[in-house]
Amino acid sequence: MTINIRRFDSTDPDFKAQLAAVLAFEASEDEAIDRAALRILDDVKKRGDAAVLDYTKQFDQVEAGSMAALEIGRADLQAALDSLSPARRAALQTAADRVRDYHERQKNEIGSSGFTYTEADGTVLGQKVTPLDRVGLYVPGGKAAYPSSVLMNAIPAKVAGVPEVIMVVPTPGGVKNELVLAAAAMSGVDRVFTIGGAQAVGALAYGTATIPQVDKIVGPGNAYVAAAKRRVFGTVGIDMIAGPSEILVVCDGTTDPDWIAMDLFSQAEHDELAQSILVCPDAAYLDKVAESVNRQLESMPRKDTITTSLTNRGALVKVRDMDEACEIANLIAAEHLEISAENPQQWADKIRHAGAMFLGRFSSESLGDYCAGPNHVLPTSRTARFSSPLGVYDFQKRSSILMVSEGGAQTLGKVAAELAYGEGLQAHARSAEYRLKPGLQ
Amino acid sequence: MTINIRRFDSTDPDFKAQLAAVLAFEASEDEAIDRAALRILDDVKKRGDAAVLDYTKQFDQVEAGSMAALEIGRADLQAALDSLSPARRAALQTAADRVRDYHERQKNEIGSSGFTYTEADGTVLGQKVTPLDRVGLYVPGGKAAYPSSVLMNAIPAKVAGVPEVIMVVPTPGGVKNELVLAAAAMSGVDRVFTIGGAQAVGALAYGTATIPQVDKIVGPGNAYVAAAKRRVFGTVGIDMIAGPSEILVVCDGTTDPDWIAMDLFSQAEHDELAQSILVCPDAAYLDKVAESVNRQLESMPRKDTITTSLTNRGALVKVRDMDEACEIANLIAAEHLEISAENPQQWADKIRHAGAMFLGRFSSESLGDYCAGPNHVLPTSRTARFSSPLGVYDFQKRSSILMVSEGGAQTLGKVAAELAYGEGLQAHARSAEYRLKPGLQ
Repeated sequence: MTINIRRFDSTDPDFKAQLAAVLAFEASEDEAIDRAALRILDDVKKRGDAAVLDYTKQFDQVEAGSMAALEIGRADLQAALDSLSPARRAALQTAADRVRDYHERQKNEIGSSGFTYTEADGTVLGQKVTPLDRVGLYVPGGKAAYPSSVLMNAIPAKVAGVPEVIMVVPTPGGVKNELVLAAAAMSGVDRVFTIGGAQAVGALAYGTATIPQVDKIVGPGNAYVAAAKRRVFGTVGIDMIAGPSEILVVCDGTTDPDWIAMDLFSQAEHDELAQSILVCPDAAYLDKVAESVNRQLESMPRKDTITTSLTNRGALVKVRDMDEACEIANLIAAEHLEISAENPQQWADKIRHAGAMFLGRFSSESLGDYCAGPNHVLPTSRTARFSSPLGVYDFQKRSSILMVSEGGAQTLGKVAAELAYGEGLQAHARSAEYRLKPGLQ
Repeated sequence: MTINIRRFDSTDPDFKAQLAAVLAFEASEDEAIDRAALRILDDVKKRGDAAVLDYTKQFDQVEAGSMAALEIGRADLQAALDSLSPARRAALQTAADRVRDYHERQKNEIGSSGFTYTEADGTVLGQKVTPLDRVGLYVPGGKAAYPSSVLMNAIPAKVAGVPEVIMVVPTPGGVKNELVLAAAAMSGVDRVFTIGGAQAVGALAYGTATIPQVDKIVGPGNAYVAAAKRRVFGTVGIDMIAGPSEILVVCDGTTDPDWIAMDLFSQAEHDELAQSILVCPDAAYLDKVAESVNRQLESMPRKDTITTSLTNRGALVKVRDMDEACEIANLIAAEHLEISAENPQQWADKIRHAGAMFLGRFSSESLGDYCAGPNHVLPTSRTARFSSPLGVYDFQKRSSILMVSEGGAQTLGKVAAELAYGEGLQAHARSAEYRLKPGLQ
């Protein structure tokens, strides 16, 4: 088996077009899936628990007499945690502790206490920050069931102060993933239901007799789950709909090529649509990585997935210099950006768009996926141009505060009335003008 | 003309159901509008400027030889500003200054400088905050053309540090709104194009030969604009799709009833679907406000809109006490919440969900609409349960930073490898393990 990863050279006149072509990814919006999801949502809205039970029987081959029978109690979650090997439990605990620590710091840094200030006339303005009341966490069953995702979604919600986190996870054929349940216990998830698909999204968005309505739904899922999340957006909040995972490695050619090849693999093994790109000013180094890719491929259990991903969506890009590499990194706005170079900070300073930056040759992306602390839920498909890693801020919201003094109302009232008349809104103007006459009170 | 605003009493056994019924608002997702918007978007994606010119001719009756002819230059924006009466210009300037001041403080409070921290082994973790590169601002033409919206959308973007704000505003029949152009000049909008509808959204989202592609589109619009924004979400960021505007007044019965009646009008005059609700423990006070509503109605230029809005969607709610009023306010999660009462802070402390809180009898909502400083773009239709006022944070995004030291890689690498093997991701594990052997480097 040989992989021929495509090679680009930034001096090629067609380079920008070639790069755009390999980056292009159209989120498939299958109308049939959308309609099916909508039908399920409507049914859950109407029939509640009964509809969820029917779909769970149909899609997961799990037959339950009542929704209550599909809830996993705290004792069972704790038992899953207790059943782990000591090494695995310790690793999970280290990861949870570090993720919690990072998000605690993030909470303290983003003005979670809000602010107020008082003007000379006594008017107080400010902002109040509050956690969401209740959050739903979708966890996929099957091959994409990652306990690390449970930590990464539930812990920031709990750090934000969300009183109730409700997890849903389908168990096709009744098979439970003990590591997922252990992660739920460890991260403080409040309730767990073994349901999935659009029916679980509907149950969380609208509430049923058994499942309480949430304010926001987070977590990855298949195409039906994604379609259902899009449809319930507005009734509840949702996180980003994630595209395939991506890594962009910017390397100055001084890191062991085997390390970089393995970093490219670590993204490619996720999914045939995953994208791994290496950018480097040293053509000979790109050759070495290409050689390492083929030498190491055979030893990878997921070599088929890796081969498809690297062949269809991978690229090795020769650039003029590291400055140009940074420009290209800003264009790509990758989910994961590794800067594997001497003095990586000088290049990081030039980066405006990336989900997460891994700086220096010891910062492999996989450390961030599991345990470094920052969130592994990151913006994909160039959305890092306008969106952020999942964080404490996604589980909080702000309310503006305006306490206008009698004195303030005199000044502001005249301004507001002038502008309201300009917009033809007389009641607005008069409402402000009434406050100009404190004698009326 | 007489308005009979519906009356509720919280002791009525059906109260919760009655309240839910009056709050219910289904964002109309008209499939025909959605399909029309999609068709226009696809055409703009394919034909660029030519398509935008065609739709502008068709929908706005504006015929232009080129897109360049539809751009309004800086000199014309400045001329619009210079043409304002001194009083109106001064009012607009005061509003702009106060909005800028509030958002500057917000920027300083939300950790806009990011953070980093260094662990004992030298590992550095943190978060970098950067502004978006380019933002599109949609401003409606026609009756909903509010210059205050230009200030409220453009100023936070500029405070966030967005280098380029591109405004689009349709000019049906070629009629320009000078106050809107003046507001654009005052708030530092970089370029203005007189285009609108789904075609303007498409031009901003995909870019054309003349109109640069943006990273996020904000601002209100009609049903076609909303449908187009939903469709381009993912290619670019979008702000919330706003529902009809709402005010909830919680009053202890000590404010002049004419003031409160006018506050209810100031919301109702926006739109027949707007919602005004008053909650008070004093039944006699509710009678007084109902009387005032009917007494003052005749003098309102928009009395027809007000009558429809208050009749169909308004309510006067008698509650047991102010504590219950606050519980109901949390349930309603209103866009605008006025707490018109003695010592309003004691009640504000009990509020978890509201877009903006106006505290005390001098804080009429209209002051916030125009000039108090906080943003008037606020979450509607109960979305304040999970979302926030438009703010500086909507024009910034965060990137995680991970710089793992050689020592850190030894500790974290073992944890990551253990968990990666647990998830069946061998390349992840090996990528971490490579860093356990610094000798290889």
